Amino acid sequence: MKMDNSPARGMRDLLPADVAVRDHVLESITAVYRQFGYQRIETPALEDIGRLSSGQGGDNEKLIFMVLRRGLPAELEAGARVRDLVDLGLRYDLTVPLSRFYGNNHAWLPMPFRSLQTGPVWRAERPQRSRYRQFTQCDIDMIGEPSVLAEAELIEATSCALAAIGLKGTTIRLSDRRILSALAEQAGVPDEARDAVFITLDKLDKIGWDGVRAELADQGLTAEQISAVESLIDTLTGLPASRLPDTLAASLPELPADVITDLAATTASLDALGVEQPVTWEFDPALVRGLGYYTGQVFEIMHPDMSGSVAGGGRYDKLIGRSLGDDVPACGFSIGFERIVDLLERHLGRDALAVLVEPDVPVTDALAVARRLRGPVGAAGQGPVVEIVRRSGKFGTQLKRLASAGYTGFVHVHMEDGATVAGAERPLSSLGPGRLTGPGGLTGPGGSQARAAHRPRAACRSTVVPGSSLVSCPPATDISRVTSASPLWFRMSSWMAKPREGATSRK
Amino acid sequence: MKMDNSPARGMRDLLPADVAVRDHVLESITAVYRQFGYQRIETPALEDIGRLSSGQGGDNEKLIFMVLRRGLPAELEAGARVRDLVDLGLRYDLTVPLSRFYGNNHAWLPMPFRSLQTGPVWRAERPQRSRYRQFTQCDIDMIGEPSVLAEAELIEATSCALAAIGLKGTTIRLSDRRILSALAEQAGVPDEARDAVFITLDKLDKIGWDGVRAELADQGLTAEQISAVESLIDTLTGLPASRLPDTLAASLPELPADVITDLAATTASLDALGVEQPVTWEFDPALVRGLGYYTGQVFEIMHPDMSGSVAGGGRYDKLIGRSLGDDVPACGFSIGFERIVDLLERHLGRDALAVLVEPDVPVTDALAVARRLRGPVGAAGQGPVVEIVRRSGKFGTQLKRLASAGYTGFVHVHMEDGATVAGAERPLSSLGPGRLTGPGGLTGPGGSQARAAHRPRAACRSTVVPGSSLVSCPPATDISRVTSASPLWFRMSSWMAKPREGATSRK
Repeated sequence: MKMDNSPARGMRDLLPADVAVRDHVLESITAVYRQFGYQRIETPALEDIGRLSSGQGGDNEKLIFMVLRRGLPAELEAGARVRDLVDLGLRYDLTVPLSRFYGNNHAWLPMPFRSLQTGPVWRAERPQRSRYRQFTQCDIDMIGEPSVLAEAELIEATSCALAAIGLKGTTIRLSDRRILSALAEQAGVPDEARDAVFITLDKLDKIGWDGVRAELADQGLTAEQISAVESLIDTLTGLPASRLPDTLAASLPELPADVITDLAATTASLDALGVEQPVTWEFDPALVRGLGYYTGQVFEIMHPDMSGSVAGGGRYDKLIGRSLGDDVPACGFSIGFERIVDLLERHLGRDALAVLVEPDVPVTDALAVARRLRGPVGAAGQGPVVEIVRRSGKFGTQLKRLASAGYTGFVHVHMEDGATVAGAERPLSSLGPGRLTGPGGLTGPGGSQARAAHRPRAACRSTVVPGSSLVSCPPATDISRVTSASPLWFRMSSWMAKPREGATSRK
Repeated sequence: MKMDNSPARGMRDLLPADVAVRDHVLESITAVYRQFGYQRIETPALEDIGRLSSGQGGDNEKLIFMVLRRGLPAELEAGARVRDLVDLGLRYDLTVPLSRFYGNNHAWLPMPFRSLQTGPVWRAERPQRSRYRQFTQCDIDMIGEPSVLAEAELIEATSCALAAIGLKGTTIRLSDRRILSALAEQAGVPDEARDAVFITLDKLDKIGWDGVRAELADQGLTAEQISAVESLIDTLTGLPASRLPDTLAASLPELPADVITDLAATTASLDALGVEQPVTWEFDPALVRGLGYYTGQVFEIMHPDMSGSVAGGGRYDKLIGRSLGDDVPACGFSIGFERIVDLLERHLGRDALAVLVEPDVPVTDALAVARRLRGPVGAAGQGPVVEIVRRSGKFGTQLKRLASAGYTGFVHVHMEDGATVAGAERPLSSLGPGRLTGPGGLTGPGGSQARAAHRPRAACRSTVVPGSSLVSCPPATDISRVTSASPLWFRMSSWMAKPREGATSRK
């Protein structure tokens, strides 16, 4: 009986091409961050439900997958409360676990600690296109560094990580949460209206000033207050590093001096980075970044191919300390991993060599040919991919299928006069789709034309090695990986032509 | 208020050194399997509870972390059944998800499909030493290959993967589930007693023949039956490839011929592999491997440093097909990832260069020095790790701390006459622990002796570059990474000496 084999609602299976793209992105990011001294940590997927529901997660707390206590009776008593049945939940972000992790392990960590976390998180959101209930987050955080070194380094490292993935020409948007506060103060916005005003300002690039003015009026701001807000933001937006400190000091006299010097240090560092990398930045006082826990500079990175940001972060000095009962300075940057993966193409290319084995070739010989071609294995990522593929159907059709599946070459292994013959390594790309599909091409009876095409008689005279049962074909072209092959022995057992009882082959 | 920051019961945090070991093992395994043509796939952590509870998981189904349905009322009605509150569970292995994955995606997968899966699984076991409720499994499977090519290749690939991790000198134990059945038949063991007899035989290497005989007698076997079982196993155990087929045929006349030819092919392949790698194998008819779903050859790999196996697997032709309503041949091998990780030492060595920055050096300059030393970033895993570290405490003490934390060298950055001075790159290992801790060593007032030791005056004359505010120290030794350094500019802002309000530094 055929079952429904879909993944659970809102989840997805990742096919080899999907995983390859994700691995490429993660490996690129990790390699860059590692060069800046960030170290990977991991925390469990499950956390105590009380910790996940503490309020820090905001609306995400409504989306927790909750896990039943073990050892419950099969039937519950009347009036049982759902909350009492639950002791664990799946994490909905990596920041709550990081805070707990730092509290638990800070004694063994360097100071400051540069953390790199990548891993799945779960949210029971309404499933929709490109939004899944399990998705990967990728965060770096510097914990314990009070100075603006943290901000400047995080932005530089993340810009480099994005460039390593292939996202070049990024723009950094930068502000400081305290500038927004000073601006609201200066414009006479009442304290109780601030949060709503900030949320509205965050939409400026989507709804424009007309929309923002209307919303601010709805929130009860006077025309003078709205005008003051608009004027201040207009004056400050896009200032270059050279004019930023003086203009900030003049426009917002209440702004603490260290906000300005910190911003000057970050922007000077970004100017220096911009000399060597195609990275630009702009000061944007209307940048809010949603999360309530930011206390200082906030930033995000934009890429021309994407609306919205590809990465965002900021300083949050009051959060990590909650797990320790003591404030700990911290600054973090989160890369929009899933958004970036969605941008990238899936490449079929596997750069693999097929050992194309006729059904009557003994298993032992097939493995030996593959082993010889593979050479020493285990040097990380260095050696060739050599995959045993059984010969089936028409030769030319199979070669075409292999080429379109991303195989770059093949070696044909067959039996001749009771001996195993390994042909030369032949490229698959050089056959070209035109030749494979052209009229009168490779569709002759028994694939004989295809066979001739891949192994020209003249170039490949079979030679029997004296004193051995090996027969090998000299390579048609100079292929260093196989020219050094020494004799292979063979056995007479047959394989592959013999499906097991009950086994069926699938399309 | 200080909170309890432990992970949830039975779970654990992974510190950087833990993750580094795990990453090394996973990367080594993955690199090898990739060379054999295995491709990574991923499935969600959550599966429908009905699929997880279908009986395939045996006792593991009692250990499922069950996830509450969303949208339940806060209070439950009387008589509510726990099972009805649950729709999802965390996977307890990777085989159940693989079976669903293949059913869902086989149309897009090659035939046969070589699958590589690594990822966390969850079991609500009673927590105990080295056994966690979340742990990593690492499986390869060849799906759709009926011939013994699957078995022979899986064993070879896994032996190579273990060797790549550093586990050499492994021994493969090998048998076939059908040999055990024929043996029971031959010895006259009643059908209904077989499962219990097999479970007992699996303990032979732990309890010896005395123990096995006693258990078999308890299970109601006659003295003749027990003696026949013992005699058959003794006759067959440890046979070399040359004698295995004839002895099997003579001892177990009911055994199907293809069991013998398949075993001959696998053992011949292992003999061929053994010529090139330090791998041995032994035939062990008492090998059972617990999982009920094996249908053919079963195997495990032993390593001299470990009791029990480091990897195990076999053919299971009746399982994958359940998701398709049709049998699909399959063969798998699972590496005991957590056991192997436990065997390996944690190395502190990070191979990192510290940019040791005095508090009055501008952030921009610190970042620029690090950037110059790092060179181009992003070439996967190639470049040096260059980490900015703030100077604090006594110089010698800090160098000692850096050396013991695995830093291999440092560059000292300080201010001199208002200019930023980057010293030469100095190795940390050459200072040696003896010099750092010896009497009269580096503990002089203000760290002056340490300072002298790390930056000999004669070797490092500060030079002001004309027309620039850069001052750089020529390297004391030839260090190619820094000799090409061009002038760095500086700014007068200060940083690092200024903790934010409310921030505390932690030990």
